[in-house]
Amino acid sequence: MTLVYQAPTEDYAFLMRHVFGVEDAAEHEEILAAAARFFEQEIAPTNAAGDAAGCRFENGKVRVPEIFHPLFAAVRKAEWNKTADETGLPSTVHIAVKEFFSASNMALGLYFSLTSGARAVIERTGEAWMKTHITPRMSSAEWCGTMCLTEPHCGTDLRQMKTRATPLDDGSYAITGTKIFITGGDQDLTENIIHLVLAKLPDEDGNYHNDISTVALFLVPKVKVDPQTGATGTHNSMSTGGIESKMGIKGSATCVLNFDGAIGYRLGASRTTNEKGQSSKGANMSGMFDMMNNARLGTGLQGIALTERALQNTLAYAQERISGKALDPADQSSAVADPIISHPDIRRILLGMASFTEGARVLASWVSRLLNDEDNSGIENPAMVGALLTPVIKAYLSDRAFESLNAGLQVWGGHGFIADNGIEQLVRDSKILQLYEGANGVQAYDLIARKLKLAGGKPFQSLCSEMRAEAERNIGTDELALYSDHLNLSVDLIEQAANHLSSGETASAYDPAGAAYDFLTMFGTTAIAFMWLRSARAALAGKDKDLSQEFVQRKLVLARYWFERELPKTEMLSKLVHLPAHGLMELPAQAL
Amino acid sequence: MTLVYQAPTEDYAFLMRHVFGVEDAAEHEEILAAAARFFEQEIAPTNAAGDAAGCRFENGKVRVPEIFHPLFAAVRKAEWNKTADETGLPSTVHIAVKEFFSASNMALGLYFSLTSGARAVIERTGEAWMKTHITPRMSSAEWCGTMCLTEPHCGTDLRQMKTRATPLDDGSYAITGTKIFITGGDQDLTENIIHLVLAKLPDEDGNYHNDISTVALFLVPKVKVDPQTGATGTHNSMSTGGIESKMGIKGSATCVLNFDGAIGYRLGASRTTNEKGQSSKGANMSGMFDMMNNARLGTGLQGIALTERALQNTLAYAQERISGKALDPADQSSAVADPIISHPDIRRILLGMASFTEGARVLASWVSRLLNDEDNSGIENPAMVGALLTPVIKAYLSDRAFESLNAGLQVWGGHGFIADNGIEQLVRDSKILQLYEGANGVQAYDLIARKLKLAGGKPFQSLCSEMRAEAERNIGTDELALYSDHLNLSVDLIEQAANHLSSGETASAYDPAGAAYDFLTMFGTTAIAFMWLRSARAALAGKDKDLSQEFVQRKLVLARYWFERELPKTEMLSKLVHLPAHGLMELPAQAL
Repeated sequence: MTLVYQAPTEDYAFLMRHVFGVEDAAEHEEILAAAARFFEQEIAPTNAAGDAAGCRFENGKVRVPEIFHPLFAAVRKAEWNKTADETGLPSTVHIAVKEFFSASNMALGLYFSLTSGARAVIERTGEAWMKTHITPRMSSAEWCGTMCLTEPHCGTDLRQMKTRATPLDDGSYAITGTKIFITGGDQDLTENIIHLVLAKLPDEDGNYHNDISTVALFLVPKVKVDPQTGATGTHNSMSTGGIESKMGIKGSATCVLNFDGAIGYRLGASRTTNEKGQSSKGANMSGMFDMMNNARLGTGLQGIALTERALQNTLAYAQERISGKALDPADQSSAVADPIISHPDIRRILLGMASFTEGARVLASWVSRLLNDEDNSGIENPAMVGALLTPVIKAYLSDRAFESLNAGLQVWGGHGFIADNGIEQLVRDSKILQLYEGANGVQAYDLIARKLKLAGGKPFQSLCSEMRAEAERNIGTDELALYSDHLNLSVDLIEQAANHLSSGETASAYDPAGAAYDFLTMFGTTAIAFMWLRSARAALAGKDKDLSQEFVQRKLVLARYWFERELPKTEMLSKLVHLPAHGLMELPAQAL
Repeated sequence: MTLVYQAPTEDYAFLMRHVFGVEDAAEHEEILAAAARFFEQEIAPTNAAGDAAGCRFENGKVRVPEIFHPLFAAVRKAEWNKTADETGLPSTVHIAVKEFFSASNMALGLYFSLTSGARAVIERTGEAWMKTHITPRMSSAEWCGTMCLTEPHCGTDLRQMKTRATPLDDGSYAITGTKIFITGGDQDLTENIIHLVLAKLPDEDGNYHNDISTVALFLVPKVKVDPQTGATGTHNSMSTGGIESKMGIKGSATCVLNFDGAIGYRLGASRTTNEKGQSSKGANMSGMFDMMNNARLGTGLQGIALTERALQNTLAYAQERISGKALDPADQSSAVADPIISHPDIRRILLGMASFTEGARVLASWVSRLLNDEDNSGIENPAMVGALLTPVIKAYLSDRAFESLNAGLQVWGGHGFIADNGIEQLVRDSKILQLYEGANGVQAYDLIARKLKLAGGKPFQSLCSEMRAEAERNIGTDELALYSDHLNLSVDLIEQAANHLSSGETASAYDPAGAAYDFLTMFGTTAIAFMWLRSARAALAGKDKDLSQEFVQRKLVLARYWFERELPKTEMLSKLVHLPAHGLMELPAQAL
């Protein structure tokens, strides 16, 4: 059994026309309709096959699932790998395509998204010859790209990195070290792979230090490229050490790469600021951070994508599978049993999935607009508000996606555990979202230690003001007025919590970090409530235009779900955020 | 890398000596020490190999992982498959052994636990010849046993069952139908398998109906057994249709069984009551419900077992892996980075796992004592309180185990996603716990629709009274007095919620079912708080006896975790429980 998939084009049309007021929405909807046809028909039916085949490592070479070869070619041909900076289309269009791709076959999509991310970094921070000879071939996906950051002994803590860059006389570098967890680090889809590698620069005496400011970013091609002509030469001095056997995304090759004095070219040496206001540990590698922040937004989208697909299939199952009778005799059919969608607990799960997915979709789209300078709400510091929300998108959306997917799996009973039914693959695939691009605990710490303090806390204040303004706008109907009150209360709570965490007056240096995760969760819950209020208002306003009564009612029911059943969690989480860390840190580490 | 495992014998000694006051604890501790040696050394190192090998289906026959053959023989020889009714030992000893087994290799353990469960049903409800010729061979695990309930189109809703029992002249029956999801339904470990099969009896005219009262339980051997002599004969008229490819417990064969007029013998025809007060839909199959209730308790234990093993390994990883510096300069080492256990968010996860595991262990042990008439607390209706808590044990413990395992996996970062590290297998294996023996949503409905109403609600009242009495006993230290207040508040909340759900005065017939899941969660959270208060008191009382200062402090820290960070959820859940189901049921099923 293959999981069905219908790309949520109607919801994106609603977002573009009614929520964000994107210009030329009709034209963009045509693009999305074409994308939907492509991903629904060509890619979505292949997801289980890629998982079953997995990647292989033979004689030092990586083989992706055989079925990926024609699919890769089809995506290239149709140019669905292109991103906003290449097409000039609004970011929402690309957010949508990225969602369709991830829902259809996330493992396949990763080869392209890493390539796009690496290409963009080179475009921003690379030299002219790279933009002549390399990025055009990445744009067409003739070549792929990667991001090489993690090493066996360190990931988040880059100070510990051991990979070294030795300056050569011609201005290039010899890169030596081992990188792990490299998505698409090797594959048999493209002739060349452009690796973006973090490595340390030596001091004047040739020594290397545990100092983040010595880390720089290098372009290291798998097959050497002549900077003058762009001609490919011999294999660079690097090899693939192996691939990982993983819980999910089995069609995506996760590689160990050994660099043995590979020729690399430094990126972004002259770049010292990040105009988007995103956190950057060192100007030397700001390009990498841009790429990672983009990937973090993508991670949230992948969570939305997998949940959307799970929801569609779980809904269909709940409408087909019969068990027990509806509890209200008036609703009982004459059959021996009624569809399980008649049961309130099944409804609770399905509405929870839908309310999360559609609320999160608005949030991810909005953040993308903020980061791409497309927002027309008039919020102050839009790019910095986008940067503030990036760890929330990455962590909260991946957490809630995993939770939603697992709730959905319960609807299938024992059938959910069976590989042939496909739903368990989505759960396994989704697990990586909470881990990669910085595990979610790291995101929470980034939020409280850096993002809340961006520009003296102004972006956070801008966001709180915007949420309160939204609450003011919504006193149209009684129900929305009630939600506005709830939103205001939650904004008060996150503001109080943020003040508490940022005040520097906590009892211990550990208190803010001990509260970070619960703070991120209440922040994410509130941000989606904000989006639901905006969506509910947009839906009501569109009722007299092109939106059907059914569409509007469904949106209002999903908004209510969030306000009734999710937002109350912020009050509980707020209490946890104000707890001191003493209870966590009291025991000596050995006594745990 | 193999996950380590150290059986929690010290915690069971604490339970027996200090929490429950089990007689002859020293003798029982010796048994547990022997069990610990066996499972730690012989079984625990095999868990990953069983997962990697999985089961195969070749030429109509099932092959379990090759490594399971010597392990199966070793367990039989050491007799660790025996249960309390065979050994006469206190149930806590067997709970402990079952936990050690599940933590070491849950997939292997299932062959034995199904056999024990089926054997016990036959002992209680079978005929004399079965107790002479069949159950002794199950007790020694010469033969295995199964439970055959689910069919392709129905699981929970047994009214829809199609498997038929045709009475034969000699008093036996011909069983015809297809059963799926049969754990150990076929294997190459034993010569014979004794299936307990639910099938429908015909009416006087030979017709079958969608009527639960026509369902009866039958003993159906894979290889025929002569009732007179016990000699095995020809293969019964049944075949194995295949095995399922699953998300986890891959060493456990999950089979499709086709019964084609197989000879079966009716069980429990004369039995009309269930002395434990457990819910029974039909006296005809009360034996099966006893087995399932026992399996539900076992499911909770499996959750504890997997979380315990994950905790031990995650703790070791957090003590070894270095990343970042401790936030308090006073705690920083001279190394480039400190172990991640220095970070409060990692502590939060580890303490949460431990607080759940050890609190849940007390709860599962106590419920086992209640069901086995061993409780000395003087609680009224002990067996019925045990029955009331059975769905809570099954669902809440498996939910929290899954949550804890996934939280633990986060500590490993990307390494948690890698098969070689072993932790992801525990997550995949644990997923079945929320699904089998009745999906958790079904447990929640059973709790509110049947268990709360057992004996007019008296067992629920007994439990609430006992929790309040525990709170009274704890006004020794200031901290425990505070917890007592919190426990009292939560007991008030679940009592109010239960009254609301049982009152029959809700606005809609759907309201109680829509609130069931949240009610079960708040009930489980409160029950574990109750156990932590009891444990904290026992630990404090034992401080002047044989318990070390460190042991007592650790227990108090874990108790505090539950009261500070888990119990506050009951207040939020209580609000959700009082919500009407209208928001869930408003949309037509097609409009979702």
